[in-house]
Amino acid sequence: MTEVEPIYDLAHLAHVELLTPTPDESLHFFAEVMGMTESGRQGDSVYLRGWDDYEHHTLKLTAAEQPGLGHYAFRATSRAALLRRVAAIERSGLGIGWTDDEMGHGPAYEFRDPDGHRLQVYYETEWYQAPAELRPALKNQASRFPGRGANVRRLDHINLLAADVSANRAFMQEALGCRLTEQIIFDDGSEKGAWLTVCNKSYDVAIAEDRYGAHGRLHHVTYAVDSREDVLRAADICLEYGVYIESGPHKHAIQQTFFLYLYEPGGNRFEVANAGARLILAPDWPTIVWSEAERKKGQAWGLQTIASFHTHGTPRVEQ
Amino acid sequence: MTEVEPIYDLAHLAHVELLTPTPDESLHFFAEVMGMTESGRQGDSVYLRGWDDYEHHTLKLTAAEQPGLGHYAFRATSRAALLRRVAAIERSGLGIGWTDDEMGHGPAYEFRDPDGHRLQVYYETEWYQAPAELRPALKNQASRFPGRGANVRRLDHINLLAADVSANRAFMQEALGCRLTEQIIFDDGSEKGAWLTVCNKSYDVAIAEDRYGAHGRLHHVTYAVDSREDVLRAADICLEYGVYIESGPHKHAIQQTFFLYLYEPGGNRFEVANAGARLILAPDWPTIVWSEAERKKGQAWGLQTIASFHTHGTPRVEQ
Amino acid sequence: MTEVEPIYDLAHLAHVELLTPTPDESLHFFAEVMGMTESGRQGDSVYLRGWDDYEHHTLKLTAAEQPGLGHYAFRATSRAALLRRVAAIERSGLGIGWTDDEMGHGPAYEFRDPDGHRLQVYYETEWYQAPAELRPALKNQASRFPGRGANVRRLDHINLLAADVSANRAFMQEALGCRLTEQIIFDDGSEKGAWLTVCNKSYDVAIAEDRYGAHGRLHHVTYAVDSREDVLRAADICLEYGVYIESGPHKHAIQQTFFLYLYEPGGNRFEVANAGARLILAPDWPTIVWSEAERKKGQAWGLQTIASFHTHGTPRVEQ
Amino acid sequence: MTEVEPIYDLAHLAHVELLTPTPDESLHFFAEVMGMTESGRQGDSVYLRGWDDYEHHTLKLTAAEQPGLGHYAFRATSRAALLRRVAAIERSGLGIGWTDDEMGHGPAYEFRDPDGHRLQVYYETEWYQAPAELRPALKNQASRFPGRGANVRRLDHINLLAADVSANRAFMQEALGCRLTEQIIFDDGSEKGAWLTVCNKSYDVAIAEDRYGAHGRLHHVTYAVDSREDVLRAADICLEYGVYIESGPHKHAIQQTFFLYLYEPGGNRFEVANAGARLILAPDWPTIVWSEAERKKGQAWGLQTIASFHTHGTPRVEQ
Repeated sequence: MTEVEPIYDLAHLAHVELLTPTPDESLHFFAEVMGMTESGRQGDSVYLRGWDDYEHHTLKLTAAEQPGLGHYAFRATSRAALLRRVAAIERSGLGIGWTDDEMGHGPAYEFRDPDGHRLQVYYETEWYQAPAELRPALKNQASRFPGRGANVRRLDHINLLAADVSANRAFMQEALGCRLTEQIIFDDGSEKGAWLTVCNKSYDVAIAEDRYGAHGRLHHVTYAVDSREDVLRAADICLEYGVYIESGPHKHAIQQTFFLYLYEPGGNRFEVANAGARLILAPDWPTIVWSEAERKKGQAWGLQTIASFHTHGTPRVEQ
Repeated sequence: MTEVEPIYDLAHLAHVELLTPTPDESLHFFAEVMGMTESGRQGDSVYLRGWDDYEHHTLKLTAAEQPGLGHYAFRATSRAALLRRVAAIERSGLGIGWTDDEMGHGPAYEFRDPDGHRLQVYYETEWYQAPAELRPALKNQASRFPGRGANVRRLDHINLLAADVSANRAFMQEALGCRLTEQIIFDDGSEKGAWLTVCNKSYDVAIAEDRYGAHGRLHHVTYAVDSREDVLRAADICLEYGVYIESGPHKHAIQQTFFLYLYEPGGNRFEVANAGARLILAPDWPTIVWSEAERKKGQAWGLQTIASFHTHGTPRVEQ
Repeated sequence: MTEVEPIYDLAHLAHVELLTPTPDESLHFFAEVMGMTESGRQGDSVYLRGWDDYEHHTLKLTAAEQPGLGHYAFRATSRAALLRRVAAIERSGLGIGWTDDEMGHGPAYEFRDPDGHRLQVYYETEWYQAPAELRPALKNQASRFPGRGANVRRLDHINLLAADVSANRAFMQEALGCRLTEQIIFDDGSEKGAWLTVCNKSYDVAIAEDRYGAHGRLHHVTYAVDSREDVLRAADICLEYGVYIESGPHKHAIQQTFFLYLYEPGGNRFEVANAGARLILAPDWPTIVWSEAERKKGQAWGLQTIASFHTHGTPRVEQ
Repeated sequence: MTEVEPIYDLAHLAHVELLTPTPDESLHFFAEVMGMTESGRQGDSVYLRGWDDYEHHTLKLTAAEQPGLGHYAFRATSRAALLRRVAAIERSGLGIGWTDDEMGHGPAYEFRDPDGHRLQVYYETEWYQAPAELRPALKNQASRFPGRGANVRRLDHINLLAADVSANRAFMQEALGCRLTEQIIFDDGSEKGAWLTVCNKSYDVAIAEDRYGAHGRLHHVTYAVDSREDVLRAADICLEYGVYIESGPHKHAIQQTFFLYLYEPGGNRFEVANAGARLILAPDWPTIVWSEAERKKGQAWGLQTIASFHTHGTPRVEQ
């Protein structure tokens, strides 16, 4: 019985920093159209959260010349767990060091994944304290249901582009203890996509191959709503606001996520999604591997994957 | 920094054995009305599962003179985790011993909680292998979506009655590593209800006070469906089948579960529920405590809790 | 073949004038919580509409000492149809006369029903012209989907209290050409409720017995949303706003309407409802008669009808 | 005041006869996958209905060498109305004559539209009498909710291909009294599509241009379900059964129908759809005209219309 135990050192994907060249328009998109709440400002950044996100923020929106990913972060399950992960990251040689200058949480250890995306991991956090006008009627809820726009509930996952999916995926398993739930392997053996979780969500992070071989790019960030009908309603609302709908609502074969892909005004792809009651409860979930032929079938109900889904990332590198 | 780390030794509530004096009618209820699949028979028991339950079974239906709970079980996250929990249970003095005569999983350690409910914990399991006619179109799904009755997806939680809620709750925290997410404490300090989880569901087990001071009784077992609309549809279907609807569909204030309470033909209360996208992701979720006054307000949208909800349990002890 | 042809002279319930002693709070309720749009003001009245109501308004909110019904109106299917109905009303002796001082529509003929509720019928109408910021993305929609509060779509029906249900119901059949789709007849032969339609909705108007024998009172006004999930969401939102929820969401046995009953701040009962895809398409639909015993069963899924549903009306007469 | 009054002589689209070269497989599709009920057999035909269709049948499935449309029928609003329509049809020169050999309804007048589709109109009908096992719990419902497959509720509309849309559309307005709710007119003035109603549904019949200039072909038949979620669930179920999904679920810009297009085993296109609470209540609804440019935008949320949607019809004429 020398089998390796699953690692439970990371609790969940905690927040994502999005860069945007159009900060005002992006803020309008997230606050009005998506229904998020602003919880702070610092420098060129505005902090936002979904109505049931329990931390100070799950989205940090930062003005920048190009769209893309600033950094993203995981929350650890305890102080000891945090130190175990930091030790593992340092062993990987990709560590940067401790930082404590971010709003909303305590000391974070900064590092990069092999593809160059910037990450943080921390334990101490600031629980969101709703002001009187945003206090929920039910005290087991982080803040009031907004009844505004798409009403996104909570951060769900991030999807990264990477020149070498396998290297990035292996790092996340080994250094962070992520579990690999689904994967795309083409006929030539190349790994085209990987879906990893640290909790019962079927994924906290996905990695897709960057067709341009670029580094550190973002595919999309996703917030969860409560039902597929909420995703459809988000599409109705985006239509009214003139938001660019890239694809969906439709159902992915992979992970069965019911998705709606949008481009926020800054150019970053943003997803509104629902997973139904699907959870990965098995601690030893065997990775589901999708072949090249299966991938070519398109989405669950037969929709062909739109071309831009394979190419568009931020910052943009395509001509 | 001597704080205690959360325990991740149990993966999830694994299955429940329900006793029924009307085995044929109960089987019809679970298979036809609820849309579950039979996966085996042994002695006086029939094994059943929801369409996305990954194990051999999540419900064991056993003929008996009285309705009630046979036993229920947790799956551990690893062999080592299992042994750690067994050691903790044995320390509590409530252990019974190892058993290996159950279909669908490996060696299980049997024990009782302070109130007398029989439990098991095990790690090795038999993954459900769908026969050809039940094979799903998408291979990340345990079996085919049935399109029959209420189409319950997966086991969600169990709710127990206990004469002493506090004692039972403390045992589950200490011996099993459950996390207490919500609780009812009355003005006199008595604990009337407790909700505990071992994963990201907001509860795997709930404990409610047994008004009759009886022991080892069951309040209800719950399966999850994908949306609130699915719960409403389940009510439509139960109406057609003449199933007794005790309460709902409505939304609990506690845990915000959208519920439908039924009595299956054997007399056990059964719930069809949906949680939206609500997950307990925080590893240090502070227990939400509901007061006597809050409890008296009834359900989330103002429905007064029906009297039988406070009294009916199985086996029956009320006159 | 001397059978009477169905009358198609009235197109639909057109608008309702609600009286409110708290005009500001009522306006906030309708505009913010229910998501309606203001389309005009005149004197003590504010005109409102749901996002897909095609006329200038469907709700006229008028400041008054007591809550209750100002008047309600039907739109005729043509000028000739209007004149036919006016002739029939005049024959009944309940006619008042022509008026042309209302915003949003042309000449209306005013009259009373036997119980004393004030009605109008007209043909010429002002189609709602959305200003730029409320123009919809799809031109077959009256105005932009608001993404605000309960997002009620369109006026659905009105429910009146009457001391003598039969007399009021017979007048609506004979003078207005309404079709009686459902009815409650108690064991003593007394008619306790009647549901009448002029179109394919299963009812435009319902009449319930006034327990106090009062006259001209309102039971409630109802707006339709697109799905049962929208009704549930409206309940979530009302909970946040502290709106009084009298009953629901639940499903009526009668007409199978999925309902949520609220009291708007002025005291009038207001319903958010959905009928699924149910339409009365048969021109000769035989009236469904519910007995006293059936009525006592409560709502479709077993909810006992709340006491206030049988007593509360506006203006209030109960002590 | 010499304006023409709207005609209310036809109550609703009543039934459709589908021809199928694979009668057993088609029957399985409609009865098991779509959840319809068989209500009779005669010769090579099986009669079917949705669970809330009030007449004996709404679908007649007839074995034939090629798929396509046998005939379709309207129910009139009265005997007198039927005679008025027969007179108008006879004036058009397209009448065939009376027939009384069909199950489930009384004497029908048979005729053709200019494109050659065979139609009937009748008044007397046989109301569906549910046998004991299909009797509904609520007596205002035609039969029991099946809880099987897609659970389609009722016939909604038919979509025809015609070589000359304008001629066919004009006939339906003039001879049948249909109201034209939406229309596609290309830049060259050619009419590419027309949507017509006889009731408050936004269409009972649609006509699309036959790209092959063929005659009498069928584009699709549509049944309504209660919500968009039901349409999504129908897609989940079709995926499991291997039913060919041509397009959707998605939302049409035209009429805003939430659609799922399938090919039943015989080759006919079949749609499962939901319209939300959208009704055409205005008696003088001005036709919404979509331009060539608007049509090229694709569906409401940006999905490009799939090529086969413009070409596939039954019987097949494309290579």
